Amino acid sequence: MRYAVLGTGQVGRTLGGRLVELGHEVRLGSRTPDNAAAVQWAAAAGPRAGAGTFAQAAEFGEVVVNAVGGRVALAALEAAGAEHVDGKVLVDVSNPLALEEGELRLSPVESDSVGEQIQRAFPRARVVKSLNTVNCRVMVDPGSVPGEHNVFVCGDDPAAKEQVTALLGEFGWPAERVLDLGGIRASRAVEMWLPLWAGLLRTFGHAEFNLEVRRAR
Amino acid sequence: MRYAVLGTGQVGRTLGGRLVELGHEVRLGSRTPDNAAAVQWAAAAGPRAGAGTFAQAAEFGEVVVNAVGGRVALAALEAAGAEHVDGKVLVDVSNPLALEEGELRLSPVESDSVGEQIQRAFPRARVVKSLNTVNCRVMVDPGSVPGEHNVFVCGDDPAAKEQVTALLGEFGWPAERVLDLGGIRASRAVEMWLPLWAGLLRTFGHAEFNLEVRRAR
Repeated sequence: MRYAVLGTGQVGRTLGGRLVELGHEVRLGSRTPDNAAAVQWAAAAGPRAGAGTFAQAAEFGEVVVNAVGGRVALAALEAAGAEHVDGKVLVDVSNPLALEEGELRLSPVESDSVGEQIQRAFPRARVVKSLNTVNCRVMVDPGSVPGEHNVFVCGDDPAAKEQVTALLGEFGWPAERVLDLGGIRASRAVEMWLPLWAGLLRTFGHAEFNLEVRRAR
Repeated sequence: MRYAVLGTGQVGRTLGGRLVELGHEVRLGSRTPDNAAAVQWAAAAGPRAGAGTFAQAAEFGEVVVNAVGGRVALAALEAAGAEHVDGKVLVDVSNPLALEEGELRLSPVESDSVGEQIQRAFPRARVVKSLNTVNCRVMVDPGSVPGEHNVFVCGDDPAAKEQVTALLGEFGWPAERVLDLGGIRASRAVEMWLPLWAGLLRTFGHAEFNLEVRRAR
């Protein structure tokens, strides 16, 4: 498959690298065509990897992964262009977290979410929120954390969720560990997990953890 | 020990009942001295159980448990009276959830929390937030859900958190399953778990579940 990964930060490079390892072709997108991190990543990742603008990457991808920060997701996708995401599965792994006066804050929150914002702004994209609840190394290597821990998917397009669930399977998440929370509105719920995630990060001193949902039946 | 449990809903009655079973004396507090649910509960729970106003219950208790809804917690504690909570461990198990136009909403959220509101309003109470992340039946019977799943404590008074951790042990939560998230500010994080909790409730069709934090180290 051809993947566009928007965002050249650690999340984008980690997801892009794993996708290349899995045999996919990947274009890492950024604001400019000559982003140093993207060019360097592409050179190291080999012939199936490339770099370009958000628009070039999104045009290339059959699937688009939003891996820029949640607060700049709409701007990145506007730059990518609706014509390059319409009809495609758009996986949003972002969280609208930012440091404000030294405190980690989440916005939008509770009455809205990045997942919903993206789906509203790009109504013909098939948005699936997933993977935002774990560190990027856990995203692509769930075996690094012991146990049958879970990831979530939500979105309004069931076939898109199935396709993302299959991708999660390639990353190492068996389908029975992927919990479907329903429509894209549930992005609020998974984004609001982040403050607790950050609290556990502080408590443990590292990000190699995840939640396993245990149930009586 | 003598416990005040404020709130005569399912959470208050379940916690109160378990505390009585454990050998403690419990007063269930409500707005009025003759609340039918509280009187009925006390009659059924036996000689160590009683009912009264918020103030009567709080005066009786060596430890005060806030089990009214998070949106009315301050009103209930104002009725209880600062003189009856000052210096005491005050366990807040509430969440500020309410149905608004058919949707479950959380308020305050992100920039504040009920746990913090209570600590600010009653600066001499030793507020510990805990147990709000699970259904009340799981609170007092963690064995009803398989696995080494977790509960959280946070609060500004370390000795108060230790005392609450011991109480959690009586309920069946071994100390190694109690995760300390730091000061009362972390109430935000555990209250913001509730939308995901509600999503899982919808997905599973029951509330007998909890999260187990799995970690690499």
